[in-house]
Amino acid sequence: MKGVILGLCPKAVVVDITHDLLPGDIRSGAFALAASYRYFPKGTVHVAVVDPGVGSSRLAIAVETADYLFVGPDNGVLSFALAREKIKAVRRLENKKCFLQPVSSTFHGRDVFAPVAARLCCGLAIQKLGPVHRDLVRLSWPEPSVGKAELRGTIVYVDRFGNLITNLREDLLRNLAASSMRIRAGRASAISMATHYAAVPKGRPAALIGSSGLLEIAVNGDSAARKLKLTVGDPIQVRLSRPNKTSN
Amino acid sequence: MKGVILGLCPKAVVVDITHDLLPGDIRSGAFALAASYRYFPKGTVHVAVVDPGVGSSRLAIAVETADYLFVGPDNGVLSFALAREKIKAVRRLENKKCFLQPVSSTFHGRDVFAPVAARLCCGLAIQKLGPVHRDLVRLSWPEPSVGKAELRGTIVYVDRFGNLITNLREDLLRNLAASSMRIRAGRASAISMATHYAAVPKGRPAALIGSSGLLEIAVNGDSAARKLKLTVGDPIQVRLSRPNKTSN
Amino acid sequence: MKGVILGLCPKAVVVDITHDLLPGDIRSGAFALAASYRYFPKGTVHVAVVDPGVGSSRLAIAVETADYLFVGPDNGVLSFALAREKIKAVRRLENKKCFLQPVSSTFHGRDVFAPVAARLCCGLAIQKLGPVHRDLVRLSWPEPSVGKAELRGTIVYVDRFGNLITNLREDLLRNLAASSMRIRAGRASAISMATHYAAVPKGRPAALIGSSGLLEIAVNGDSAARKLKLTVGDPIQVRLSRPNKTSN
Repeated sequence: MKGVILGLCPKAVVVDITHDLLPGDIRSGAFALAASYRYFPKGTVHVAVVDPGVGSSRLAIAVETADYLFVGPDNGVLSFALAREKIKAVRRLENKKCFLQPVSSTFHGRDVFAPVAARLCCGLAIQKLGPVHRDLVRLSWPEPSVGKAELRGTIVYVDRFGNLITNLREDLLRNLAASSMRIRAGRASAISMATHYAAVPKGRPAALIGSSGLLEIAVNGDSAARKLKLTVGDPIQVRLSRPNKTSN
Repeated sequence: MKGVILGLCPKAVVVDITHDLLPGDIRSGAFALAASYRYFPKGTVHVAVVDPGVGSSRLAIAVETADYLFVGPDNGVLSFALAREKIKAVRRLENKKCFLQPVSSTFHGRDVFAPVAARLCCGLAIQKLGPVHRDLVRLSWPEPSVGKAELRGTIVYVDRFGNLITNLREDLLRNLAASSMRIRAGRASAISMATHYAAVPKGRPAALIGSSGLLEIAVNGDSAARKLKLTVGDPIQVRLSRPNKTSN
Repeated sequence: MKGVILGLCPKAVVVDITHDLLPGDIRSGAFALAASYRYFPKGTVHVAVVDPGVGSSRLAIAVETADYLFVGPDNGVLSFALAREKIKAVRRLENKKCFLQPVSSTFHGRDVFAPVAARLCCGLAIQKLGPVHRDLVRLSWPEPSVGKAELRGTIVYVDRFGNLITNLREDLLRNLAASSMRIRAGRASAISMATHYAAVPKGRPAALIGSSGLLEIAVNGDSAARKLKLTVGDPIQVRLSRPNKTSN
């Protein structure tokens, strides 16, 4: 892919976001892209190739937003990032002149997405790529259940350190923060909030607000995923601790 | 290696092809290079450092072809790519002025290949590197056995998804394609041809023409290498299905 | 991190040294940096983010030496490299205008170190970053025990091939080299010196001077770490062989 890009747009600077995803894991790819794309300069072309349906009838798209361009399969891998962006144009990749020929049936990253991204990077207008596309495939983002004294959430991503990132946003927790919280995740039933990983003893779990503004469960110096045997989709529960009483 | 290259040729753009090879696996390195080098711009200097014989009497070479330059140990790692190229010059790396000094006995990637590649990238003529070299080490490419109703091939590469790439070229299969084919690979005895990975149910094997124009065995959503317990060197058999008869 | 750097200093060329360290392994990070930083062009900004104490009271620093700039947590990860450099200035990273805002408590690589490194790369004076810092955290380098006929050392790093790099410098071994040496490491009690990996049969251990000028134990075609069950901190012993006698 990089060879193709540099051949078509020599001035392009190519950066890898991650190669640590499990093959075909669209949901984690979507999360990794959403967590990092905003840290790139305006005008960056983001290419996401988690593409288990390559060669099938799944569509390929390019999306222009206020600040960025996105290229990839229309399988949801772009959808978490796009949910935060103001979309200006979505086009289907159908102009074969923009592809590498012949197009293989197993590696559209090389034959379709890389050449399209390179052309966009070097100034091609998105309108040249194909017809307008509606009805983007969007992955469902699991919405947390919010009660007065309890939040129920879900693990949405495991990072390469084994930290468990949940769908519980910082602002939801602020509402509860007047009193202290107790967090249950798998076998760990009384995890406390911490300000940073090393605030708890080595090997002990802690909950903290991670770098994407989401609650995460970590184990100091170890993998929370392995230690707590939890992964994407597993539930997490945040409860108000019983308030301190002045008597008794 | 990248520090050395950028120090000697600051305009160089350095791209990694793969770091996923098993240590010392010259054959897979040769395949990975052959599969990707042509997608880079003309004039690219390709450096291949799968070099288990570093420090021994194995020679080091640079090769100029019609479109590219290649640098590496003369152990066959360049040979699959060179087999497809029109070779213009081959030189032994013997001009010590082109190396980093002192040359270690364990890391010629840093001390020999990187500085030589950087100098070539910045315009040094290959003739300056050392004497003409003949008799390149070439890895044998296993030739498939081609019968009227049967092809016998071999797995030549396992990619990072666990797909099993064989030595059976697309054109060989076209000759058989008038009728349907049945493919046997390890414990899977009746694999059908598919147009793409997701054309078969999850967890099921399929055979398809991969991105290098070679027959490959994949398992939808899984690793064929692990699922079928097959690896490089294992045999694969393609047979004509019994033709449909109009009577009986 | 790369997105942040390229946004603040578009001319920066970003190179990864390694992503193969175990999470939180400050000592191996320090070794990897010390082994490679000198091969980069003068003026390179080296950023080291092995940072298990992120968000705690550990300090963040930038260091200017005769040839380079270094940025990272003050946890020792820079110390092996700095031990070889002439230090000109050390500053604490306290000027919040140089950071990405808001600063997360879990990813200072993105929010603190990357933006500071980008600004230094694009010409910011180190004095702008914060106050002078003294008393850098330095990891202890285990000093070998040197006898007349014996050296006792320690494994200080395991590379990605499983080679065991020790703290025994080439010059210490030269002093012994008049006679042949026998080396003991774990279960292997009579390892001989070799000039290169392939000088011993496949699967056999050898000791040699590696690319950092340190004695290393390797197994030809395999991982010495796995084969000999040794890792960082394990002892190694080098003895003079009994000298050849002319009679008897």
